[in-house]
Amino acid sequence: MQALLDELVEKHREKGQDGKLADYIPQLGEQNPLALGVTVHTVEGEEFSAGDCPVAFTLQSISKVFTLILALMDHDEEAVFDRVGMEPSGDPFNSIYKLEVDSPGKPLNPMINAGALVVSSLIRGRTVDDRLQRVLSLVRNMADNQEIDIDSAVYHSERATGYRNRAMAHFLKEYGIIDDVESTLELYFQQCAIAVTCDDLAQMGLCLARLGVNASGESVVPRELARLVKTFMITTGMYNASGEFAIYAGIPAKSGVSGGIMASVPEKMGIGVFGPALDEKGNSIAGGALLKELSQTLDLSIF
Amino acid sequence: MQALLDELVEKHREKGQDGKLADYIPQLGEQNPLALGVTVHTVEGEEFSAGDCPVAFTLQSISKVFTLILALMDHDEEAVFDRVGMEPSGDPFNSIYKLEVDSPGKPLNPMINAGALVVSSLIRGRTVDDRLQRVLSLVRNMADNQEIDIDSAVYHSERATGYRNRAMAHFLKEYGIIDDVESTLELYFQQCAIAVTCDDLAQMGLCLARLGVNASGESVVPRELARLVKTFMITTGMYNASGEFAIYAGIPAKSGVSGGIMASVPEKMGIGVFGPALDEKGNSIAGGALLKELSQTLDLSIF
Amino acid sequence: MQALLDELVEKHREKGQDGKLADYIPQLGEQNPLALGVTVHTVEGEEFSAGDCPVAFTLQSISKVFTLILALMDHDEEAVFDRVGMEPSGDPFNSIYKLEVDSPGKPLNPMINAGALVVSSLIRGRTVDDRLQRVLSLVRNMADNQEIDIDSAVYHSERATGYRNRAMAHFLKEYGIIDDVESTLELYFQQCAIAVTCDDLAQMGLCLARLGVNASGESVVPRELARLVKTFMITTGMYNASGEFAIYAGIPAKSGVSGGIMASVPEKMGIGVFGPALDEKGNSIAGGALLKELSQTLDLSIF
Amino acid sequence: MQALLDELVEKHREKGQDGKLADYIPQLGEQNPLALGVTVHTVEGEEFSAGDCPVAFTLQSISKVFTLILALMDHDEEAVFDRVGMEPSGDPFNSIYKLEVDSPGKPLNPMINAGALVVSSLIRGRTVDDRLQRVLSLVRNMADNQEIDIDSAVYHSERATGYRNRAMAHFLKEYGIIDDVESTLELYFQQCAIAVTCDDLAQMGLCLARLGVNASGESVVPRELARLVKTFMITTGMYNASGEFAIYAGIPAKSGVSGGIMASVPEKMGIGVFGPALDEKGNSIAGGALLKELSQTLDLSIF
Repeated sequence: MQALLDELVEKHREKGQDGKLADYIPQLGEQNPLALGVTVHTVEGEEFSAGDCPVAFTLQSISKVFTLILALMDHDEEAVFDRVGMEPSGDPFNSIYKLEVDSPGKPLNPMINAGALVVSSLIRGRTVDDRLQRVLSLVRNMADNQEIDIDSAVYHSERATGYRNRAMAHFLKEYGIIDDVESTLELYFQQCAIAVTCDDLAQMGLCLARLGVNASGESVVPRELARLVKTFMITTGMYNASGEFAIYAGIPAKSGVSGGIMASVPEKMGIGVFGPALDEKGNSIAGGALLKELSQTLDLSIF
Repeated sequence: MQALLDELVEKHREKGQDGKLADYIPQLGEQNPLALGVTVHTVEGEEFSAGDCPVAFTLQSISKVFTLILALMDHDEEAVFDRVGMEPSGDPFNSIYKLEVDSPGKPLNPMINAGALVVSSLIRGRTVDDRLQRVLSLVRNMADNQEIDIDSAVYHSERATGYRNRAMAHFLKEYGIIDDVESTLELYFQQCAIAVTCDDLAQMGLCLARLGVNASGESVVPRELARLVKTFMITTGMYNASGEFAIYAGIPAKSGVSGGIMASVPEKMGIGVFGPALDEKGNSIAGGALLKELSQTLDLSIF
Repeated sequence: MQALLDELVEKHREKGQDGKLADYIPQLGEQNPLALGVTVHTVEGEEFSAGDCPVAFTLQSISKVFTLILALMDHDEEAVFDRVGMEPSGDPFNSIYKLEVDSPGKPLNPMINAGALVVSSLIRGRTVDDRLQRVLSLVRNMADNQEIDIDSAVYHSERATGYRNRAMAHFLKEYGIIDDVESTLELYFQQCAIAVTCDDLAQMGLCLARLGVNASGESVVPRELARLVKTFMITTGMYNASGEFAIYAGIPAKSGVSGGIMASVPEKMGIGVFGPALDEKGNSIAGGALLKELSQTLDLSIF
Repeated sequence: MQALLDELVEKHREKGQDGKLADYIPQLGEQNPLALGVTVHTVEGEEFSAGDCPVAFTLQSISKVFTLILALMDHDEEAVFDRVGMEPSGDPFNSIYKLEVDSPGKPLNPMINAGALVVSSLIRGRTVDDRLQRVLSLVRNMADNQEIDIDSAVYHSERATGYRNRAMAHFLKEYGIIDDVESTLELYFQQCAIAVTCDDLAQMGLCLARLGVNASGESVVPRELARLVKTFMITTGMYNASGEFAIYAGIPAKSGVSGGIMASVPEKMGIGVFGPALDEKGNSIAGGALLKELSQTLDLSIF
């Protein structure tokens, strides 16, 4: 495995040249486009790393998995899926369009931004900070790493430039899908700015692969929810390249525009990948290619 | 297992009252809405049936799985996926809309009608009948049943009323995605009218579950393609309820408006279901519910 | 003429029962649905009124005509129409959809809300209040009534509930179409809350009919702009019933959800109508019917 | 006037270099892109021509005006506007999209292809040829030229390549908006292939300008319908550049992809223009520019 990971990192690292850094906030645009790292944690307790793994990066859209888990711990499924759908969209990650054509205001699924805003609005807590602490606590428990925290520079940049998310939040308010625009946005910008490493992502992927049990053996996510989010990861986890990724990699994965990907192979392993240069769909260009080859080589497909 | 199937048939049969028979052709509208049958074939060679299993019905959209396999045996993946996408759509099965907004004329995936027409146009053969015989041959081999054939009354009805499919075929021709409108439609109407039973569907589902090996032990579908179509079955197999079905059943399945569903549990079993009353998304209302409970009871989810 | 107006008011007043008051802010919902008034000012200097004319109401969307004039006085046409299109939309007045499908972020025309926000953002002035005073000044000059002012209760209500407009403004900011979200919204909510009477609307319609010359004989709108806005009034002035209104009335008109309509018959007359009960497209149900019959009776169609 | 027309032809002729000939059928692609002609017939009986006026070309979309008149002579307005809307679309002339999102299957207006197909299906006659003769008869009467006839090479080419129109006709059949697909298409392809000259277009424009009275003094179009079609010409006559043309020319006009434009200035004149090189919206690039300048110079705007 170690040799394989080393080889894959070297093989795919250069693909970063064909990708593009996210540049809507300065912190993302300053990354090294050739950075590439991967960490694997197996159910047998083995751990392998190759490439640029110590680098920290922010969760961005990967956070949508964790807030969905928390919202479903806070409410029954009906209450959540009354406000956000379950269907893949075939639209770009930041599309506002589907809000209007389908049942008025109901986002198609929790992995598009509009849906993730709805999910964030459902997380319980007295204040925004209480709610953030609950998200952080879930993330820390899944990763078995109590050091995980917000990257506050990224948070402030997101907050200052998030016009599209502000637009969507007001739109959702107009339709009565969310209650409070400002606190929802605040939590959303913060959850996106949670900083992690490949190791953290691999641990969290493993936790989902073990149906909610983390590295310390604690059950931190209900078994049913560990399954449910892996389903969304397969159908909608890689923006509008999810279908293609499901075909060529065949494993549940969720990406973020920071270049991170968290993958979870049921009953086998968790994988964390980082490669900040993105393809045109918004997924790590080198990281996605590495994961596809890793899955094919190790026959990891769930199909 | 037998007791479980008997119980599930009795429990879910009445849901047919809340559904609606497809009525665009007379043959579908004349079914008994309370009919419900299920057959399971396991990798261990066991077979179980409950309810109305001897009833024959037509494949309809389930045929899209088989033509996709054949098109990918006839052409390399690039040639096929240049003309039809891989992404789930979140749109109704009969939407023409996505043809125009995305890259001009390219249907989003092979499981929507427009995409299935493209796929049918790619199947090799000198005449329409040659091509149909190749589809029939694949279906017969997968089901290990050489008796399978066209229901010619259904075929003629489809042909007489298929205005929407005719519209889409002309649209695809306009964009240069297909070559010959009439032969494509002819093959498409015929493939939809292939008549099968729950037993056939279960055998075909098992063949996919065994990565292409049928009940007689022959490898009739390439291993990679057996995987690929199960991926499409998860992301797009149940029309625009695919996401919901993936969450609550967690197994690859493909439905048709005749009320049939073919499900395939990797390395475990194939399942054939028939219940002609449909829910508003076009899936068997009782059959879908039965499958969800069967999967949950036996813990069949691939996630 | 007086007899005709009296007759038309009595004939159409009851249609208010089939309409619906706008109810997104309390001030609009409290109107008398059977109120109906009409005032006509002719180029010959005659003036006729019938029904409930002393009632004051707010301009709402009618204000879009005046801000467009002002933006085109402040910038050359290219600068304005680079940011907002000229084409009718066939979509409801409050649609956000067209923002995304056409050239990114550019609203189709200045009479839909998104386009009107762009227009408001282009009005010159050091502060929001400066800019508002310039709008008020134009409106007062066109109506030849220096008493016209903001209804501040309506303004505050609009401001408190305008989530959809906030959504659109953030969306426009995301695309770089407008610069400052808050000042744009502030001006927009204020311009919508300018209070007028049927008499004012008739004077303003007359001013446009006389190619920019008001009742005192002053030229307050450039001749070309008086023409240009009448064109928009024909193609897009009555929301997505503009086509129908053009066919049956044949005169440039602009309506607002307060129930006001300003009509301008080139070289002949200005007409102000008020009837707060709206049809499903958002136009005064009784007012629209009255205008159609008035136009047909007097043969006012420009076609 | 003669000098003005001569000057405008010379001034705008070269714009043809920046345009593109329609090339979906060979006959249109073989035109001279620098051809430009204009003919004016005034209500006073004067006639002026400049440039390439003897050239014959086909009506294409201009025919939609005449079939709409005939359908409204054959049926009352409600029967027609139940099946096709009155609203401008803001979409390209060949969009199929609006069919699905609005009320199912009802095209937005009679000037888009889908709407024109509906209109053609409503024209009375025992056979397709009877119906065509009635269209020809109206066109000949309006132009006061009994020689007008079909260009049968163009008709056969249209028929052989009209996949998009076939697609739309089948779609309309699916929704029950039209009855017979083949006869509707047949008539449609034929009406598009009616061959005329600038002189014919100017005569027909004059007939509409005189509220239905042709050059011989006969009333060949009901007064109300002459008005109604001019309204559609303003709101939707120049494809999705109609809004812009209304602003800069301000006169009712209808264009076709052959490069013809028929304009009608109420109570003043009819204008026929021909310039086969098209802009990106599908209108004659030189012809449109010539008409705008002609209207501005002579102050022809109806606004």
